[in-house]
Amino acid sequence: AQMSLEQGYEARREFDTRYRLLLRTVSDAVVFLSASDGRVVDLNEPAAALLGGTRDALGGKPLSRALKDSERGDLIEMLTSAAVTEDGTPVEVVSLAGDRRLTLRPQLFRAGGERFVIARILSADGADAQDDSLG
Amino acid sequence: AQMSLEQGYEARREFDTRYRLLLRTVSDAVVFLSASDGRVVDLNEPAAALLGGTRDALGGKPLSRALKDSERGDLIEMLTSAAVTEDGTPVEVVSLAGDRRLTLRPQLFRAGGERFVIARILSADGADAQDDSLG
Repeated sequence: AQMSLEQGYEARREFDTRYRLLLRTVSDAVVFLSASDGRVVDLNEPAAALLGGTRDALGGKPLSRALKDSERGDLIEMLTSAAVTEDGTPVEVVSLAGDRRLTLRPQLFRAGGERFVIARILSADGADAQDDSLG
Repeated sequence: AQMSLEQGYEARREFDTRYRLLLRTVSDAVVFLSASDGRVVDLNEPAAALLGGTRDALGGKPLSRALKDSERGDLIEMLTSAAVTEDGTPVEVVSLAGDRRLTLRPQLFRAGGERFVIARILSADGADAQDDSLG
């Protein structure tokens, strides 16, 4: 039993670490939300940049707070509905900071007994938040 | 003890699930390698596409097998060395399938008692493997 406990711990830590590194490494803007209350579970720097805030300021808060009033009410419902459509309909929003038109491309998933939304965020005028320094 | 076992299981599954979804969702080409033997631990579709293969065919094999002979010998050493340089020196390689010039941008990390490399793969002529369908 001790062995399997340790293996479980190692496996958990491995995916935990892989997840964090992957999220930090990619240039795509990605946000994870709780499907129950729309709070930001996690997001990366490119996502924070597009939303006009910081990871610290946006984390743990409802995503709707970073968006214009008109979009706030049923944001998480719009996202979960969009996520279950066959064609993955994007959801258009406007950031509160910077008044920026953004496109959210959500997918719904279940993990650890809860439902989450993972969404890529793209600038609606086509430019993704690429931080590529290769030039 | 039972409760913490279950919580451990749930937490593990959650990061496991988040990791898989994130890897599938991003448009960046990403590969995870074992730092001990250079085998592909995981990779996403954009990475497989740039390497000219499939996830199934490339997974579990040394990454060097997907690259031209000249690059094979010390690939994992080149990657781990490049990963620990301050400026994250990119490593240039050429794919065996398609004779494509690729740039690997590696980072070294430790998880579950082993060392791994996460590398973004970019086409050396500048075009990333973006699968964006927003147009």
